[in-house]
Amino acid sequence: MARRRAVVLLSGGLDSSTCLAVARAAGYETHALSVDYGQRHRGELARARKVARALGAKDHRIVKVDLSAFGGSALTDRAIAVPKGRSPGRMAREIPVTYVPARNTVLLALALAHAETIGAEDVFVGVNAIDYSGYPDCRPEFLRAFEKVARLATKAGVSGRPLRIRAPLLRLSKAGIVRLGTSLGVPFRITQSCYDPVRGRACGRCDACVLRRKGFAEAGVPDPTLYAGRGER
Amino acid sequence: MARRRAVVLLSGGLDSSTCLAVARAAGYETHALSVDYGQRHRGELARARKVARALGAKDHRIVKVDLSAFGGSALTDRAIAVPKGRSPGRMAREIPVTYVPARNTVLLALALAHAETIGAEDVFVGVNAIDYSGYPDCRPEFLRAFEKVARLATKAGVSGRPLRIRAPLLRLSKAGIVRLGTSLGVPFRITQSCYDPVRGRACGRCDACVLRRKGFAEAGVPDPTLYAGRGER
Repeated sequence: MARRRAVVLLSGGLDSSTCLAVARAAGYETHALSVDYGQRHRGELARARKVARALGAKDHRIVKVDLSAFGGSALTDRAIAVPKGRSPGRMAREIPVTYVPARNTVLLALALAHAETIGAEDVFVGVNAIDYSGYPDCRPEFLRAFEKVARLATKAGVSGRPLRIRAPLLRLSKAGIVRLGTSLGVPFRITQSCYDPVRGRACGRCDACVLRRKGFAEAGVPDPTLYAGRGER
Repeated sequence: MARRRAVVLLSGGLDSSTCLAVARAAGYETHALSVDYGQRHRGELARARKVARALGAKDHRIVKVDLSAFGGSALTDRAIAVPKGRSPGRMAREIPVTYVPARNTVLLALALAHAETIGAEDVFVGVNAIDYSGYPDCRPEFLRAFEKVARLATKAGVSGRPLRIRAPLLRLSKAGIVRLGTSLGVPFRITQSCYDPVRGRACGRCDACVLRRKGFAEAGVPDPTLYAGRGER
């Protein structure tokens, strides 16, 4: 019998890489999809390519969509500074300037297009409602609403094989994700989470770096991340 | 008082051009958005530019996203032929090969990103549930589901100014759209609906041309479309 296919959104960061490992462990034929949306941390696409290979994805596509044409986020607009040194508590309360307008909606829409084309019945996405509670499009009710769109929007939904949106990391802490990924053999060393890398190394101070560091520390797992040294700035 | 802003998805065809005219007539400051998704009928983007200018859009952006990377549709994949000479009845029953997987979900997601960035509270889309009943993502329930996604996905939705998806042509026949557009001064001559133009002229035989011709005929409005001549093939 043919294996069920899944499209896995893969940024090359810690969360999406763990998500890919979960889909693989669950027995899916995995089709990784990365989106080049004009992010300033473009190096993550090269990391995604390595992670897809390391975790045995069946294939990996990179689709370009130029969200930087809209601006409005520190992740796509170089005129807006990436905030540094924020506390996890503050991250949980505020929508940060690193929020990319409607990003997860765009990413899921592209994953849906890919899934429909290849006949995948599941889309995996590494969103997390705990650490990123400031992002509206990481909430469970957003994912449920998108799943309904997916059912109504597609031929598969019409013919009775509705597509499912799977978010296995949704309610895990960052430490929990680190533990899960470790148990599944995710090569965290080659993943990249930093919003603002310095010559390929993590800055260590943006929201993504702060959460990632904290996750490794709380999980009691040695952090293999290469951080930019003081002398490198 | 500042005028309300609307993002209007504009392909340069008859429907979306009429939709832009409706938004303008309703008093919105209109921000036209066209998506270059790898469609083989790329000439429509140049038409969109002309239509946006002619109908007084405040601005017009073209965003690129390469859906042809996925394939699966006659509109993005040159290996699949555009069907010719189908009857309107057959179009209403079958999902045609010109269906682009998840296209309207992708277009609306991009419109949502643009709307959130510029602070627009409305997104206008020229979808129509009558003539294109074979397309799952032209159904009213799809639009309602997407509207819910838009409310949950965005900062605006969180802060209580939810975005609305407006589809003023949803329940009009093509003849009705022609009459509405005529009354609003839409320059139909410069619009382009054809899926498979021949040197810039409409082929006259694809689904889009068949419906458009029928619309003008039934509305009793002279059809200004330039069709490819017999000798031009």
